[in-house]
Amino acid sequence: MNIDMIRAAAVRLEGHARRTPLLSSPFLDELAGRRVLIKPECLQHTGSFKFRGAWSAVSALAPETRKRGVIAFSSGNHAQGVAYAASQHGVPSVIIMPADAPQLKIDNTRALGAEVILYDRETEDRDEIGERMSAERGLTLIKPFDEPQVIAGQGTTGLEIASQAAELGVTEADVLICCGGGGLSSGIALALEADAPSLRARPVEPEGFDDVKRSLAAGAIQRNNQMGGNICDAIVTPQPGNLTFPIMKRLCGSGIAVSEEDALHAMAEAFLRLKLVAEPGGAVALAAALYHGDEIQGDTVIAVISGGNVEPAMFARALGRV
Amino acid sequence: MNIDMIRAAAVRLEGHARRTPLLSSPFLDELAGRRVLIKPECLQHTGSFKFRGAWSAVSALAPETRKRGVIAFSSGNHAQGVAYAASQHGVPSVIIMPADAPQLKIDNTRALGAEVILYDRETEDRDEIGERMSAERGLTLIKPFDEPQVIAGQGTTGLEIASQAAELGVTEADVLICCGGGGLSSGIALALEADAPSLRARPVEPEGFDDVKRSLAAGAIQRNNQMGGNICDAIVTPQPGNLTFPIMKRLCGSGIAVSEEDALHAMAEAFLRLKLVAEPGGAVALAAALYHGDEIQGDTVIAVISGGNVEPAMFARALGRV
Repeated sequence: MNIDMIRAAAVRLEGHARRTPLLSSPFLDELAGRRVLIKPECLQHTGSFKFRGAWSAVSALAPETRKRGVIAFSSGNHAQGVAYAASQHGVPSVIIMPADAPQLKIDNTRALGAEVILYDRETEDRDEIGERMSAERGLTLIKPFDEPQVIAGQGTTGLEIASQAAELGVTEADVLICCGGGGLSSGIALALEADAPSLRARPVEPEGFDDVKRSLAAGAIQRNNQMGGNICDAIVTPQPGNLTFPIMKRLCGSGIAVSEEDALHAMAEAFLRLKLVAEPGGAVALAAALYHGDEIQGDTVIAVISGGNVEPAMFARALGRV
Repeated sequence: MNIDMIRAAAVRLEGHARRTPLLSSPFLDELAGRRVLIKPECLQHTGSFKFRGAWSAVSALAPETRKRGVIAFSSGNHAQGVAYAASQHGVPSVIIMPADAPQLKIDNTRALGAEVILYDRETEDRDEIGERMSAERGLTLIKPFDEPQVIAGQGTTGLEIASQAAELGVTEADVLICCGGGGLSSGIALALEADAPSLRARPVEPEGFDDVKRSLAAGAIQRNNQMGGNICDAIVTPQPGNLTFPIMKRLCGSGIAVSEEDALHAMAEAFLRLKLVAEPGGAVALAAALYHGDEIQGDTVIAVISGGNVEPAMFARALGRV
């Protein structure tokens, strides 16, 4: 896993993934007490950065392998990214989702071109289903974060941040990144090491699900004690990845954990000041920029909004914080 | 008023106004039955395209004149655009607003650097107040649309659309534009005439406030019979401008009028599919693209989302349409 893979992914993504802008608002600067720059990956295809990793992985396959199709386990942003990347390549995709996933997510994933296979969480083993389907059809598994070509795709976000920050004359800043398994954080960290070594990647997680923060502090992988019950569900994973953690350990500054209330308030600020729709897990980095300023270094902070796939009812909760 | 003024404005706006991207979603294509490209000016500074015209007008003033400051009458997007453009130039701005304007808009306009003067709609004459203040302080009035440098600034949106459509290989399309007094529509129409003559500007208005549509049909300026009571208040004006109408008459295709329900549904689609916050008046062009397909020509349609400054309660109404 190295910077050359990220640069190669950037070439493959050119003209397919969006180069999202770097946004700002004087109101957010005032609130944070420093300049705040926002990288809105909610504007990426399928509404999250996951499209980058998915496109990178699908496009990196040998043509004969790719033609047989890809498979992913996901009920969320990774599913949509893989489905759309596959259909744009003209190859089939199979997405294994729990039968109790929200109907809207199932419908969206199908509409993006995937064959969705539902399984019963109580009685069926999704890995067994996936292995059987892969064997039968020759499908390639696209893992959500602990996969080099996925990390390479997410890292293209970091190449863009490095270039856009330089255009604005920003030489030193913390780059706050919404963090689940660490694919986006490790990819951005590698890109910044190469292209903007004075920008520092900082993973941000929900309080109570801060496995990466605790792992970085301990110097070894720590697990979360729980897996559900947080509105930032899109970025809740059991533990950092075996590929992503060593990269984060070598390159990232310490982690930051924010509350659900912080995330909802950050969603409200994104609505009001940026005219962007952020999902709770996608808003934690902005929340850290706005409400955890004492844990951040420098005159400027860069925050990634990682996704905007949020149910109307949850968004209405955030609107109540305006 | 000509293309050279728009090109000159583009040079002055470079590095100050945002070059907004051209977005899309396969779900919107499906809904519209043709390819839909979105120009999201809600992502512009101050949340609407009005910043372009304001920057253009302020930057076009002679330094000695500009130093004394500018003045505008507005309770909405034009006010915020002028306030921010002036403060970024380091010059004072005075905004005359009705005392019953929403407190949030008053606060925002002040926070963007303006001196806000409130007047009583019942007992005071805003023009008299404005003339007195201009005379006393030597302020320059920045009109919201019937002003060449304002039209030139809005026209830079059209230069970007022409260039971005060409990059995507789009050679023929209707360009749907949210239309009040016609500053944005006439500016874009002039830019397209020069840089993309096979793209056709089409003004879109709320039903019942379709003065531009009726004026284009009649070949002469028509007035609205009413001025209030529509959720698309940001684009309700008494009649087309004396400068903007002849340009629209020469260059625009026929107007389209959409209902409040169409606008709310388009806001819901922008939330769901683009992760963008659109205000009701800013969503009418997207509404026309999605729900008035029979009035549109071609395989591709381009729709401008003109602004995103919407109260949380109104946005919650739109969320109810998802």
